[in-house]
Formats: sequence, structure tokens, C-alpha cells
Amino acid sequence: MYVEVIAIGDELLIGQVTDTNSGWTARQLNCMGWELTRVTVVRDRADEIKAAVTAAFSRVSVVLMTGGLGPTKDDITKKTLCDLFGCGLHYDERVQAMNEERFSHKGFAMNSLTRDQALVPDDCTVLYNPVGTAPVMWFDRGDKVLVSMPGVPSEMQYALTHEVLPRLRERFNEKSSVHHATCLVKGYTESALAIALTDFENELPAFVRLAYLPKPGVIRLRLTATGNDDAIVTGELDRQFRKLTEGLGSHVFCREDATLAEALGMILREEGLTLATAESCTGGNIAHEITLVPGCSAYYRGSVVSYANDVKSALLDVSPDTIAQYGVVSLPVVEEMARGVCRRLHTDCSIATSGIAGPDGATPGKPVGTVAIAVAWGEKVVSKMRSGGPQREHNIDSFTHAALLQLIDLLRP
Amino acid sequence: MYVEVIAIGDELLIGQVTDTNSGWTARQLNCMGWELTRVTVVRDRADEIKAAVTAAFSRVSVVLMTGGLGPTKDDITKKTLCDLFGCGLHYDERVQAMNEERFSHKGFAMNSLTRDQALVPDDCTVLYNPVGTAPVMWFDRGDKVLVSMPGVPSEMQYALTHEVLPRLRERFNEKSSVHHATCLVKGYTESALAIALTDFENELPAFVRLAYLPKPGVIRLRLTATGNDDAIVTGELDRQFRKLTEGLGSHVFCREDATLAEALGMILREEGLTLATAESCTGGNIAHEITLVPGCSAYYRGSVVSYANDVKSALLDVSPDTIAQYGVVSLPVVEEMARGVCRRLHTDCSIATSGIAGPDGATPGKPVGTVAIAVAWGEKVVSKMRSGGPQREHNIDSFTHAALLQLIDLLRP
Repeated sequence: MYVEVIAIGDELLIGQVTDTNSGWTARQLNCMGWELTRVTVVRDRADEIKAAVTAAFSRVSVVLMTGGLGPTKDDITKKTLCDLFGCGLHYDERVQAMNEERFSHKGFAMNSLTRDQALVPDDCTVLYNPVGTAPVMWFDRGDKVLVSMPGVPSEMQYALTHEVLPRLRERFNEKSSVHHATCLVKGYTESALAIALTDFENELPAFVRLAYLPKPGVIRLRLTATGNDDAIVTGELDRQFRKLTEGLGSHVFCREDATLAEALGMILREEGLTLATAESCTGGNIAHEITLVPGCSAYYRGSVVSYANDVKSALLDVSPDTIAQYGVVSLPVVEEMARGVCRRLHTDCSIATSGIAGPDGATPGKPVGTVAIAVAWGEKVVSKMRSGGPQREHNIDSFTHAALLQLIDLLRP
Repeated sequence: MYVEVIAIGDELLIGQVTDTNSGWTARQLNCMGWELTRVTVVRDRADEIKAAVTAAFSRVSVVLMTGGLGPTKDDITKKTLCDLFGCGLHYDERVQAMNEERFSHKGFAMNSLTRDQALVPDDCTVLYNPVGTAPVMWFDRGDKVLVSMPGVPSEMQYALTHEVLPRLRERFNEKSSVHHATCLVKGYTESALAIALTDFENELPAFVRLAYLPKPGVIRLRLTATGNDDAIVTGELDRQFRKLTEGLGSHVFCREDATLAEALGMILREEGLTLATAESCTGGNIAHEITLVPGCSAYYRGSVVSYANDVKSALLDVSPDTIAQYGVVSLPVVEEMARGVCRRLHTDCSIATSGIAGPDGATPGKPVGTVAIAVAWGEKVVSKMRSGGPQREHNIDSFTHAALLQLIDLLRP
């Protein structure tokens, strides 16, 4: 079953908000064997919204829309859909009652705009939204369905999971099957890996495809199998995935579609090791990546974000002499940070960073993008200097990535 | 000038990677007064790519494409554009030399796939890419331009900034002007604010529009003015923005399009105050948000991410008795964390969190989503319990947002 998403909102097209709804929707559709084939992001303009709906209906049977359902003037999705489908609006008493309840619970007064959130198109099925004021609107148009949902991620996610997907599954009793299997590979460039996998790729049956998602030092390999018979699809996918991962041997360090922090967590659990982090330039982002993983408290004990130099000495026992002699962005400093945080937080392993994320802070011989990273496991400490680019956010991300990979390398050489 | 983006890649449509390129592109275009009017995300399929290009060319003169330029089989953008525009491929010696240099510098060997990255369409202008192996391809088609760029954000950003935008500006000597002014407002619901601004909105000239971007407790208000005369556009925007912010008085706590961490940073600088954080459930994300802001070392000294309970006692002086008596997710514990981190890191202000991000960890009376947040400023400590939802990542984000806002509320009541 093929689905398209139309995301509506000027804020998406001036770059003020990133559309994360589409990716989330894609993952849910995939779980039920459906495919998202296109995302169209359009402005809050009636003619552009109508054109996008008409075009999407010419290609697929299910169109999921997000955004443009707020109470204010700039949000026009509801009115535009009424125009397009030729129907009027009426007050829905249940939506009205839910919104009144919501507002009184929060201690806010209703007003004319919030009351109008209960206006719904005459010709649609209203799906009730317990987590926001905008109702979800389900339009049946012949053999096609359009569902309009709020753009606020938590509201969209609630509606999709609890109301929309169960109804879609019932409405389209579609049996097609799509499955993915992903592994993480290190020690190859993308093209060297592709050459190593030439025979494997040529021998793949037509319904199984291989994709490469490279990041520095890591390649995510994804096998996708599609077909009508779920048993054949999953059977062949399993067989090919085993062949792929066995062929690559110890280059494969994770057999799931995991983040680096998740992959590291799996290794730490397997080995029964604990972890702490000591971060300067990464400013807590390594801790954040690690703690995004549910259950990380089994191996992760905490972090000292030592942004100021004297915090490195006070909480991590870095010698002020080492800082004075080598500079704060240096291998001796991160080695002391890595050892210090293991000792202070009583862990087996640690990661430490000190660098210049930018845009300011460069010193002679150490341009913006320079970072020192140390990882420790018991008595073993490995430290490396690396260089990044001029962009602060990109540097923080790539230092984090490199630091997690450096510890994985120490634990799984 | 209107521009469309076409983002190519199966990984975007199965939700494995989030498209951040489009938003970044939108922000750059906006700076030169151009508008991104649509983003289309399509799969790595020749017919879908061709259909998207043809449709985009029917609407706008400039199409920016990202993705599908890697050396592996799944990437087909280059071949597809050659098919669509009816041209062949040849080796570009300069690209070849640059890639050889790149590889030898990294200590990798070239292979047939990386050599083929130097194959370029006969009928395009090659823009050289010093940060990756895929050249950027500029196609002139009558009065229209299509530029194909790599999907890797750092490569795309480099190409757009250094090569593509300067050439587009020269090629289309377009004078239209788009400007935005944004402020952050607290103490209103979205609809109450819209009612308060009814007269303001009705009195706006047709070329100035107002948009509401609500988040819990904060509304981002954006004025956008468009026109042909830059002086008129910016003059009217300034006038209306002043009227808007003066009318809202102290509800406006930031007069820029800033994140909450940026807004907090501006307040701390104005007041000459320093900040530290003590995080449990937010796991370093507050520190990360704060340290994304360039120059934050002027006011931010660091964080203790005390994921394990004994780290709260060892590094933040939280009494084990307090934890035993009230539970680790409680107001007394976060108050001690807030005071402890101020004392240990010698700061004027602090933020402390302890909560249950989920999916596990609920205790009787404290479901997943429960969080205690304390903020301190000198002797003043304000602490609050809040409740979130079942989703870990969403909880971490919303706890972070609430914590930053709680300190802003203390500093700017």
C-alpha cells in the first residue's frame, strides 16, 4: 500500500521548524508493511494545498496531511479542504465539550477562536483528539482517503497511532509486505565496501535491495525486501542478512538499525561494563545521545560537563599544570579527564572531549574544529586529535559521533 | 524569486534520516530575499525523480536537488538527470584529480566506484566540491536552472554557500525582498494572544503577515513583509514589529528568532549572571541546548549529569536522607541539586531536573512523564512538579523546554 504525506506550514518552508512528522509517519507505516512514497511540503496557501492534494490523489489512495489546524488566521487547512471537497462547516458538540473540559482543567477561559476549533466539515468523519484542540478529519473520497492531522508532533503521533492507522488497516485490507534489516559496519570506505559486496549485490534476488548510508567511519547497510507473501519476504531477508553479516565478519559491530549510542550500549551490556563521560566542547551532547537510549541507567552513571577550565580541575582532577603546559585542547588534558571521571564516578569506561566547536576560540595551531578525544577502559586509555569544520552545531555532532565510535573501537577492535 | 527543493533518497522516506537540508536551504534563500515555495521528497526511482523535476520546472525557475550522488548502486540521480536532459557522461579530469588527492591524503586507495564519481554529464556546468567526492552539477535549461548537490549536509551546505547561491544571485538579478521579524511571548495561550492581537492584525497592510508558532508556555510570533522595494518592506516591518512588541509589554521576553537557550543566554548576559545545570532525567540535553549557543562560555560554567543516585550525593551534595525520604523525583531533591551545583560550580543561577523519562521507571504515584524541576538565582529557589507523556524523547525535549522557561520566568517575571 502506498501513502503520501503533505506537510503544510510556512514555518517549514522558511526553515524555522524541521518536519520530523514525516519520518515518524514513515516508520509507523513501515511497521505495517506500507510504504511512504513521497512527501510534499507546501505553504499555508489554499491554491498550493489544493494542487498538492489533487496531485497526490492521482498517484496514491491514502494521503496523510499535517499542519495548518491551529485557531489563528494563518492556519487555513480546514477551510481549504471544505472548498476543495465542496462542503460546509458545523459545530461538533463532542469536540466542543472536550475543548471546554481541556480549558477549564488548565484554568484558561474559552474564547471565540478556541470555540471555532469545534467547527468541522459536514462531509468528514471526526476523529477525537484528546491531546489538543484541533479535531482530526478523515475524508473518504471514493476509493481514496485523506486524513488531516495537527502539525504539533505529539498530537499528530497520538492521532496516527490511536485513531488513524488502525482505521486505515481496516479500510484497506492490504497484504503487501516490506521488511528491512540493517547493520552497522566500520573499517571500510563506502566505495571499498561496495566493491567488497559486488558479488553479494549481484546475486540478490530482484525483490531484495541493498542501500548504503555512510557517515564518517561508519556505514549503515540496509537490506529491504518487498513482496506479497510475508513468509517468503522475511525468510529471504533473514537469509541474505545472515550472508551479508557473516561475510563482513568483525567489521559488523551492530546487527540492528541502531544509533551509535545504542550500539555502544549493547556492547557495554554484553560486557557488563559501566560508563561515564567528561565533556567540554561537546557540552553534554554525548550524555544526551547516551541517555536517549531507554534503560541506559543499567550501564551509564553520568557526566561532568566541564565547560569552564577550573571545573575540569575541581570535579575531574585535571592538573592546572597540565592545562598550562599543553593547553586545554590537548591529549594530556583529555586523558586526565577520562581517568578522572572514571575515578570520580566509579566506572569501567569513559569518554572525554575538549575542543574548539567555534565560531570563536581558535588559538595558534589549533583552528576552529580541532578536538582532542580520549576513551578509557580500565587501564587502557586511547586519545586522538581530530579536525572538523567551521560550523559549531556540525562540529558538536561530529565530535560526538567520533567519540562514541572511538570507544566502540577500543571495546570491539 | 521562487525556488523548489527536491530531496532524493529512500532513507528519507522510510524515516531513517531526517531531511534537515531543506530547512537550511530555506534560511539561506530567505537571507537573499528569495522564497522556498515547496519541498518534494522522492525515492531513488528514476521515474519519480523525473516527474518531480518536470513538475517543479512547471512552477518555478530554480530547482535545487539534494541526494542520490553516492558511488553505490542505489544512487541514481546523475544517470537519471542525463536521461531526462538527453546527455551522455564523460570523465572530468579536475574532479578526478581532486578525488585522487582526497583519497591519498586520507590514506585510502581509489577504486572503480570512486573513480566513477568523476563522471559528469556532458551538458552541465561542474561546480567543484572540495569537501566530498561527488561534483555539484548545474544544468541550464532555457530560462530555468536545476542544481544537483550531494545529500550529506556538510557537503550540501558548502556547495550552496560557496558555489550555488553566488551564481544564482548573478544569474537571476531579482530584486524582490522578503523580511521576517520574530519575538517570543509568554503568559498567553495561542488563541488568547490572537484575540488580544485582533485589531493589530486587522490593521496590518496586505504585504505584512503575522504567524503564530506555539509551544507549551511560549508563542513565537513572526511578522513577514514582502515587496519589491527593500526600504519600504524593512521600514514597514520595523514599524509594525515595534507596535507589536510595545503592545505586548513584558509578555515579550525576547525580540529575536531565538531558541529558549539563546533567549536565556541574552538575559544572563544583560544581568551579568553565570549558570550551571544539574541534570538527571534530561541527561545532558539542557547543557547541550545551552552550549549550542556560540559564546555561551561567557555565562555557562558546566553541568553535572547525575544519572546514578550516588553521583547526586558525591558531586552535588544531595543528602541520601532526602532521597530516601522523598524519593529521587521530588521537589526537595531538585532543590538540593540546584543549590549544590551553584555551590560546586560557583555560579549565580542553576537549573536542576529529576524525573522519569520512560518507558520504564514509574513508581506508585509517579507515572512515566513525571518531572521535578528547580531553578535557583542567588537565595531564591523555585521548584515545580510537571507531567509529560509516555514517550522518552518527547519527555526529554519537553522537560528541557520547561526547565529553561522556568529559569526565564524567575529572571523575567
